[in-house]
Amino acid sequence: MISAQHLYPAGQITLREVGLRDGLQLVRRFPSTEAKKQWLRQEYAAGVRHFEVGSFLPASRMPQFADVRELIDETARLGAWSSALALNERGAMDACAAGVDEIINVISATEEHSQANMRRSRADAVELVRRSKALSAASDHKPLVNAGIAMAFGCSIAGEVKPEDVLRLAEGCLEAGADAIGVADTVGFAGPTQVAALTRQLVDLCGDIPVLVHLHDTRGMAVVNAAAAIDAGARALDGSLGGLGGCPFAPGATGNAVFEDLVFLCERMGVPTGIDLAALIAVRRILETEMPEEELHGALARSGLPPRVKWTA
Amino acid sequence: MISAQHLYPAGQITLREVGLRDGLQLVRRFPSTEAKKQWLRQEYAAGVRHFEVGSFLPASRMPQFADVRELIDETARLGAWSSALALNERGAMDACAAGVDEIINVISATEEHSQANMRRSRADAVELVRRSKALSAASDHKPLVNAGIAMAFGCSIAGEVKPEDVLRLAEGCLEAGADAIGVADTVGFAGPTQVAALTRQLVDLCGDIPVLVHLHDTRGMAVVNAAAAIDAGARALDGSLGGLGGCPFAPGATGNAVFEDLVFLCERMGVPTGIDLAALIAVRRILETEMPEEELHGALARSGLPPRVKWTA
Repeated sequence: MISAQHLYPAGQITLREVGLRDGLQLVRRFPSTEAKKQWLRQEYAAGVRHFEVGSFLPASRMPQFADVRELIDETARLGAWSSALALNERGAMDACAAGVDEIINVISATEEHSQANMRRSRADAVELVRRSKALSAASDHKPLVNAGIAMAFGCSIAGEVKPEDVLRLAEGCLEAGADAIGVADTVGFAGPTQVAALTRQLVDLCGDIPVLVHLHDTRGMAVVNAAAAIDAGARALDGSLGGLGGCPFAPGATGNAVFEDLVFLCERMGVPTGIDLAALIAVRRILETEMPEEELHGALARSGLPPRVKWTA
Repeated sequence: MISAQHLYPAGQITLREVGLRDGLQLVRRFPSTEAKKQWLRQEYAAGVRHFEVGSFLPASRMPQFADVRELIDETARLGAWSSALALNERGAMDACAAGVDEIINVISATEEHSQANMRRSRADAVELVRRSKALSAASDHKPLVNAGIAMAFGCSIAGEVKPEDVLRLAEGCLEAGADAIGVADTVGFAGPTQVAALTRQLVDLCGDIPVLVHLHDTRGMAVVNAAAAIDAGARALDGSLGGLGGCPFAPGATGNAVFEDLVFLCERMGVPTGIDLAALIAVRRILETEMPEEELHGALARSGLPPRVKWTA
C-alpha cells in the first residue's frame, strides 16, 4: 500500500513536475506520447521522482491526456511516482484501474468558482474525495487521494478568499479521508506573507498529513511564495519545466512555477532536491522541439548555473 | 544638509529606480535626454522618489551618462532624490559640483574583482569613500556618500565571497564616513538564506546607518531575495523598470530586479510603497520606444494587476 509519508517524507521538500498535466492544459499542440515518455525518462535521470502525468477526462474533451495510462505505466516502470487528476467519479474509477499512485481531486475555494468551473458545489467536490477514497480502498493499487484546493489565495471570479474558508474545506477533505492536502494559487494573486500564513495554518490542521503548495508565476511571485511555503512547513511544491502552462484568466501571462528555478531556490536555501539542475535544464530541448510555439520561461536556463561557487545544498 | 535618515527613513522600505544608470550600462542604444526626463517625470508622477541617474565618467567612455547633470537638475526640480556613481576622485568632485543628493562609490567584495574591474585595491576603493566624504563636506550641497559593495554574495572571478570579508569592508567604509552601505548581488548568485544572513549582520553592524540591497534577477531570485532583505531589516532596494540592464558575465541573462515586481511584492507583504503600479507599468512605453531592441522583463506588465482583490498594503 502506498503511504503519504513515503511519497512526501516529513522533513524534506518534494518537488513535483506537473508540466505533463498542468503544463499541457492550454498548449496549442502537445507532445507525442513518445516525446512525453522521453520527458519522463530524462527528468527521472536528472533525479525527479514525482510526476503529474495527466487527467482522467474523456479524450474528446482533452486529447492531450488521452495517453495518461501509458504515462502512468512508464512512470511506474522507471520507479517514480505518478499522479493524475480525476474530476468526477468515473475519472476516479479509471484512475484506480490505471494503477496511478495518486489521484488528485480539485475543490474550488469559492462557491462561485466551483459552480462556474465545475458546475457543482464545493460540498459535492468534497464528496468526490470521500468517493475516491472508497474507490481507492476497493482497488488493487490503492492510490493516495490528494485534495487540491484551487483559488486558495484569491479567486478570479469571487476575488478575496478567506483563509477560514480554505481551512474549513481542508477540514472537510481530511474528514473525507484525503491523504494529502494541496492549496493552489491558481491565478497568481498570492504574496509570501499570505502563503506563509495559510501554509502554517494548514500544517497545524493537517498534522502528519502532508501539505502541498501549487504556485503559479503569473505575477512573478512563484519563487518567493515557494520559499515562504518551505519555511512554513509545506512538504511538496509543484513546478513545470520552463514554467510551461499559461493562465486561462490572464492571456499571455506566465504559468506554473518554473521547475528549474525551484530546484535552484531549494538548493540555495540548503534544501537538497536530489536533482541535477544542468541535466534538468537539458530536458527543455524536448519541449522546444515538440511545442515550438510555446514560450518557455526560467532564469537558470538563460543564465546558466553560477560558476565557481558551491550553490548546492 | 541631506540626512540619510531623511532619504531612507527607518521602519520603511525605499525603492530606488536604477534603470537610468545600471539599466543603461549595457544597452545598444540609449534614450535621448528628453526621453530620460520623461521617464523621470512619469515615474515621479507614479510615486517614485529615488532615482539613480547616471555615472560621473568621461562621456567618451560612457556616452549614455553624458547628460547626468541635466538629470540631476530635473530630479531636483521634481522634488525627488538623485544619486550617481563616482568611481574616482574626479568623479566625486564633479558629482559634488553637480549638486547630486547621493554619491555612490563602488567597492568590490574581492581583491580579484577589484583589480580586474577597477584596477585598484579594495583599500583604495575604501579611501575613495573617505575622500568623497571630504569633498562632500566641502561642497555646497553636501551629498550623502553611499558605499556600495559589489559582488557581495559571490564573485564572477573569485567565486565564493566570505560574509566576514564583506562585513570588514563595510566596517572600513563606515569608518571612512559612509552615510549608507549597500551590498550588491552583482551576478545573481545569491539565495534568500544568504541574503537574509548577510543583511542581518550588516544591519547589526550599521546601526542607524541605512543598509541598501541591490539585487539582480540573473537566476530568478531577485524577488525572493528582496523579501529576505526586507525581513532582515534592509532600508532600501534597487530595481529597474522592466528589469532593464543585463549581466556582463552572463550574456542574454536577465538583469536588475524588476521595479514593478518589487512594488507588487512590497505591497503584497504589507509594506506600502506609495507607488501607483499601473502608472509605473505605463512608463515602460518610453523604454519600448527608445530602446526597441532591449528585452523588457516583468510579470506584472504581462499579467496585469490582480482583479477583484485588495493587494495593496
